[in-house]
Amino acid sequence: MPTQTQYGLMSPDELVAERDRQTANYTQLKSQKLTLDLTRGKPSSAQLDLSQDLLSLPGTNFRAADGTDCRNYGGLTGLPELRAIFGELLGIPVQNLYAAGNASLELMHDTVVYSLFAGTVDSPAPWANEPGRKFLCPSPGYDRHFAITEAYGFEMIAIPMNPDGPDVHAIEELVANDPSIKGLWAVPNYSNPTGVVYSEAVVKALVSMPTAAPDFRLYWDNAYAVHPLVEEAAPNLDVLGMAAAAGNPNRPLVFASTSKITFAGAGVSFIGASEANLKWYVQHASKKTIGPDKVNQLRHAQFFQDADGVRAHMAKHRKIMAPKFALVRDILEDRLGASKTASWTDPKGGYFISLDVLDGTAGRVVALAKEAGIALTPAGSAFPYGKDPDDRNIRLAPSLPPLDEVASAMDGVATCVLLAATEKLIAG
Amino acid sequence: MPTQTQYGLMSPDELVAERDRQTANYTQLKSQKLTLDLTRGKPSSAQLDLSQDLLSLPGTNFRAADGTDCRNYGGLTGLPELRAIFGELLGIPVQNLYAAGNASLELMHDTVVYSLFAGTVDSPAPWANEPGRKFLCPSPGYDRHFAITEAYGFEMIAIPMNPDGPDVHAIEELVANDPSIKGLWAVPNYSNPTGVVYSEAVVKALVSMPTAAPDFRLYWDNAYAVHPLVEEAAPNLDVLGMAAAAGNPNRPLVFASTSKITFAGAGVSFIGASEANLKWYVQHASKKTIGPDKVNQLRHAQFFQDADGVRAHMAKHRKIMAPKFALVRDILEDRLGASKTASWTDPKGGYFISLDVLDGTAGRVVALAKEAGIALTPAGSAFPYGKDPDDRNIRLAPSLPPLDEVASAMDGVATCVLLAATEKLIAG
Repeated sequence: MPTQTQYGLMSPDELVAERDRQTANYTQLKSQKLTLDLTRGKPSSAQLDLSQDLLSLPGTNFRAADGTDCRNYGGLTGLPELRAIFGELLGIPVQNLYAAGNASLELMHDTVVYSLFAGTVDSPAPWANEPGRKFLCPSPGYDRHFAITEAYGFEMIAIPMNPDGPDVHAIEELVANDPSIKGLWAVPNYSNPTGVVYSEAVVKALVSMPTAAPDFRLYWDNAYAVHPLVEEAAPNLDVLGMAAAAGNPNRPLVFASTSKITFAGAGVSFIGASEANLKWYVQHASKKTIGPDKVNQLRHAQFFQDADGVRAHMAKHRKIMAPKFALVRDILEDRLGASKTASWTDPKGGYFISLDVLDGTAGRVVALAKEAGIALTPAGSAFPYGKDPDDRNIRLAPSLPPLDEVASAMDGVATCVLLAATEKLIAG
Repeated sequence: MPTQTQYGLMSPDELVAERDRQTANYTQLKSQKLTLDLTRGKPSSAQLDLSQDLLSLPGTNFRAADGTDCRNYGGLTGLPELRAIFGELLGIPVQNLYAAGNASLELMHDTVVYSLFAGTVDSPAPWANEPGRKFLCPSPGYDRHFAITEAYGFEMIAIPMNPDGPDVHAIEELVANDPSIKGLWAVPNYSNPTGVVYSEAVVKALVSMPTAAPDFRLYWDNAYAVHPLVEEAAPNLDVLGMAAAAGNPNRPLVFASTSKITFAGAGVSFIGASEANLKWYVQHASKKTIGPDKVNQLRHAQFFQDADGVRAHMAKHRKIMAPKFALVRDILEDRLGASKTASWTDPKGGYFISLDVLDGTAGRVVALAKEAGIALTPAGSAFPYGKDPDDRNIRLAPSLPPLDEVASAMDGVATCVLLAATEKLIAG
């Protein structure tokens, strides 16, 4: 039953009555003994089924277009025909895009490691030599990004997210004066978890702003490059070209993968960068591998054929995903709208909805949900060190469960949000 | 035409005549305009064809034995059924063996990186904090091992190889007194490039010797665990059990892969270690990946079915490989035997023959061969820093070319060896 009144306008007695109503709802919720999971942005079985043909490819045809036997060693830069397909989609010339293993996260991790140990092509010294090294973290953001910079000893600085991207004025001021700031995590299209698409003005500012560090890097994780939830996709801006035009050709390192296009964990990753950066990448990557899984790259090239093949494939994903996001939106509006205790994003792409609940209640909501059998990402996990200063943000990932489970889960979450809000407001 | 006389017994005039003969041979060799490659231990097409069925697996069956959908994220420890198959072959309990990505080299690289940045479970401090850190390198050994420790700032100490493994007395003395020696590279079975199989006594000494460093590690690269060239395979000694019994359970890190079992670069890798080490590994690996390519792991499990499936498969490899090694041996004996200018190994497994030519001529032999269209691994590459102190060793990799090309290449190499030897002996 939708709440009819704005919580902020309720009298103390009305709040208590509302809390009792929500407690009853919550008791009823627990009695359902749900086991639902909205924690991670995992594709659903229906989405994975779209790539089923991959499972019997490449069949007898194991040769790349240039005749290379993909079953043997070599090819650290990746299969040219696959790079061409994704280069077109990402807006990156094929010579600036290499194809790699099954995880773009690994490419990010490894390039951080190489920078730490050897420095980048623009570094006066290895990053590891700077004990006070820092990284900028637009927040809420992606927990696995932050985990890398935390593990490798960077001080992480949270940057507020605006509707058109991270707060560039805040960033500009920081990087102009502090040479120990080495980089910024960015998900330019359909950001995790806000769904924000970086505007051209924001991208331009990021690639052209003066930085005290000569080796400042944009870790440009274009994870949702071809993942719109609406008819018209956000463009993939030519960040490498824009950076080169601004005189900072080596600043962006672009990452992408097919983890949410084909199979999560059995896909192919990409790294896009300047010629100098790619040479640097290969020099270091050659110490750890003789080459990526070319058979899997060939499998993907055969499956898609061309960039239009990927576009058509992503349209099928959208048909499965969009109704789930619409359902979440509808349930949140229906259950939480009148109470004015929460706000949420309406992403045009990507995998997440970012839900802001009453300040100081996110942790409580997640705990209540857990007790009712609904697993949510831990509160705060979208912030550096897992600490949301306002204890407000919850990342919702509706992709994995089928529609009816998304509905049950969201209805349950709404109950937890309202119960936690009444508790908080009564406590004052 | 075989040389009939021992070079060391020739008079100066005879040597000049012999040099002229070999120069004529060499001129004839060059006139053949060969393009042959014995540089790397790559499987041949015939070997790769043995795994052709992998290319259309897993087909419609994408679930692991426990029901896991292998197309989705997760499973950092690897597919249990695949770990069971290789655990049996490697003599490692399944709980002590994880399956990973396409390259065991990457596992070695990454565990070095984790040790540098965070330290091992036994480290008082991260290895990176020790500027004078060192690594022991049995030589001749594997160039890609040495490249990792060189890239990450270890001083590398060459250790002589004996017929039963590296010189343990030299090792024991070094590690007992120097806490900055952090590890040893080892290929216990059919060493690269000598073919040496470590004896049980050597393994026992390595796992039980006192080390000044509490966090000393054996990087145990069992790359040729199931790769005999003869009927009877060398046993895979239980290095983990032996180390535990000696009170050093965390000392060995075992690595293996299917790169030379199925497809080179499109196979599956393994890491075997103590429970504490594996926990440490997962903790760090989880920063860079959500999990390995489980579809490829499933594909391999389905292809082999069980350990006997691997054994039967390796018997087919042997039928292709053994004749090439016999041919190399025969040609070397025929062309070089009488001259007594060279010696070579007769490996019972693995991928390489180690050829020792007249001291001071290995670089010249490789250069002569190159000029004649025969690519050999650069002289010295089996030694730390690529420097063979005696300029004597050449690694021969006969796996890739078909038999007739192996014959042409080896005949050509023999000519180069003899020509270089006469030049050297004349120069005095």
